[in-house]
Amino acid sequence: MGAMETLQVDLQERSYPIYIGRGLIGHHALYLPHIPETSVMLVSNETVAPLYLGAVEAALEGKRVDKVILPDGEQYKTLETLNRIFTALLEGRHDRQTTLIALGGGVVGDITGFAAASYQRGVPFIQVPTTLLAQVDSSVGGKTGVNHPLGKNMIGAFHQPRCVVIDTDTLDTLDDRQLSAGLAEVVKYGLIGDSVFFGWLEENMEALTARDPGRLAYAIRRSCEDKAAVVAADEREQSGRRALLNLGHTFGHAIETGMGYGTWLHGEAVACGMVMAAEMSRQLGWLSPDEVARIRGLLERAQLPVAPPPELSAETFLDLMAVDKKVEAGRLRLVLLRGIGDAVLSSDFDPAALRATLEARRAA
Amino acid sequence: MGAMETLQVDLQERSYPIYIGRGLIGHHALYLPHIPETSVMLVSNETVAPLYLGAVEAALEGKRVDKVILPDGEQYKTLETLNRIFTALLEGRHDRQTTLIALGGGVVGDITGFAAASYQRGVPFIQVPTTLLAQVDSSVGGKTGVNHPLGKNMIGAFHQPRCVVIDTDTLDTLDDRQLSAGLAEVVKYGLIGDSVFFGWLEENMEALTARDPGRLAYAIRRSCEDKAAVVAADEREQSGRRALLNLGHTFGHAIETGMGYGTWLHGEAVACGMVMAAEMSRQLGWLSPDEVARIRGLLERAQLPVAPPPELSAETFLDLMAVDKKVEAGRLRLVLLRGIGDAVLSSDFDPAALRATLEARRAA
Repeated sequence: MGAMETLQVDLQERSYPIYIGRGLIGHHALYLPHIPETSVMLVSNETVAPLYLGAVEAALEGKRVDKVILPDGEQYKTLETLNRIFTALLEGRHDRQTTLIALGGGVVGDITGFAAASYQRGVPFIQVPTTLLAQVDSSVGGKTGVNHPLGKNMIGAFHQPRCVVIDTDTLDTLDDRQLSAGLAEVVKYGLIGDSVFFGWLEENMEALTARDPGRLAYAIRRSCEDKAAVVAADEREQSGRRALLNLGHTFGHAIETGMGYGTWLHGEAVACGMVMAAEMSRQLGWLSPDEVARIRGLLERAQLPVAPPPELSAETFLDLMAVDKKVEAGRLRLVLLRGIGDAVLSSDFDPAALRATLEARRAA
Repeated sequence: MGAMETLQVDLQERSYPIYIGRGLIGHHALYLPHIPETSVMLVSNETVAPLYLGAVEAALEGKRVDKVILPDGEQYKTLETLNRIFTALLEGRHDRQTTLIALGGGVVGDITGFAAASYQRGVPFIQVPTTLLAQVDSSVGGKTGVNHPLGKNMIGAFHQPRCVVIDTDTLDTLDDRQLSAGLAEVVKYGLIGDSVFFGWLEENMEALTARDPGRLAYAIRRSCEDKAAVVAADEREQSGRRALLNLGHTFGHAIETGMGYGTWLHGEAVACGMVMAAEMSRQLGWLSPDEVARIRGLLERAQLPVAPPPELSAETFLDLMAVDKKVEAGRLRLVLLRGIGDAVLSSDFDPAALRATLEARRAA
């Protein structure tokens, strides 16, 4: 194990540590204090299991470890896949003192977290995220759940992990497209409320896409810190503060749902959605054309798509956006930008600006 | 609306009222303060909907009311049925300010409550229980969930309703078998911690099976009070106090699972399970033969089964009981009786007493 940093997520009795560093995944001392009894259910997927399951299992020596390996992909983030975890738990006679461990990307983490929230009405779980996206997004916040054919993340629970183990070496096996998808969420934290970090990203983007380990570790830690501060202030998304984390997501979810889950990666859809939010903010006179160009430029340098799929008409977009969770009492609420590092939640915008954004991009 | 009593369930910011009385179901003033926005999803089943859906809908005048009607029966308490509610919510574009109303028995209440806990990670819900069992059991405590083929209530959440509307007139349409099943849970409260109530039930059982409205209302209120006191002390089943409510349930769940859901009613299985718990307590020398006879006798007068199905061998029982949630760290914990009105949770018992109980009844 190399150097390790520990970031504490502060949520009263639900507080937990995030361990960040190289070579952490097989380190038993990180897991054991967070596993109350002897039985563990390790949940992973077909892609990640061959790479890292053995290391985690070795770290759990002395525990009774059962395993369930899920298919890989957002299209499997369903109630049916969730039920496979319940079946494995029941077949293995796991009681309510068991601990679930999620080893994989955001899909594995979200499903496993929801399984932990729901199995016997709640058991502990540990996150071991192996994609950049999961490391900077799902490891903080306690949002768990599955998709429904009619909407993404519509079914779920708030359930905090006991700890999160982020081994940055796992990024070595991540393909370029997945790495870029994670960078979209990293850029998001800069855009929402951390303009200094946005500036740092503008200076270091090529080092990040080239997988410089030190800079990746810094970007992960800073992203988790930024997210943890927001979540600590609004754990259950009640004040609107937490909703800022959805920058780009209402547009992005429309792309993901409209194109069919798994066609666009979540991070790709969010990248495009952030450009659309920026463009709409410009239409409203809140952002300058220069700022929009900086945002678009940084995401392009991260190898991310910045224009929505031409197949989705403005009408389809509006339709898909209307069912998003960010709708409140029938009004669409969007996260928009008053500047780089200054996101705002607004339902009080000129609908023409939204329409213009959805139309304009068809010519782009 | 006739005389109404209000019982407050005290759970800090999750506290809620239970309204009990005749003719309450159509009374709009009971619902409206608990519905935050305009949209409502009314969930009922094929049996109850033709009888009472119209009355509830009329009481919700001014709201946008969508409906979903589920098939009737414990065998439909599944993830698949749950998903029908999610589909209806999404098709109707319900956002996270919607309110779910459960109109029916325990199955409708448990599924709807879990749907409310999980839809967009949590929306409000209201219980309108129309069976005696649901009125005295699922209306207090916030346990929601569905069954899995390998175990009952294995998947769920704690989610408290905003209010519970108990219209005792709905018992007029309940068949005798369902009424008796509800009386099993009523007797349970006496057995657990209220020997005075047990004595009252011994004096009034024939009036209850004859549906005397005043005595039924009294039995419902007292049962809810007894349960609310336990739940207030241990909302999430952490101290063991709440686990006392599972008297008869570990045996009973084994019967329900072993015979296939829907063959025995839940209350019937619990009645039989309570006799088995009493018999085992006698084997341990904790109850006198007289006390066991009083318990068996009262349940028989309630038209309830007091002997388990001969199809289930002792081995099958042990197997099915091992997967029950009451197992902790591999040890079976059972609720047993030290007297009428004095239940105790114990994992420290002579296994021979359990074995003898499971064997003995085969000769009964």
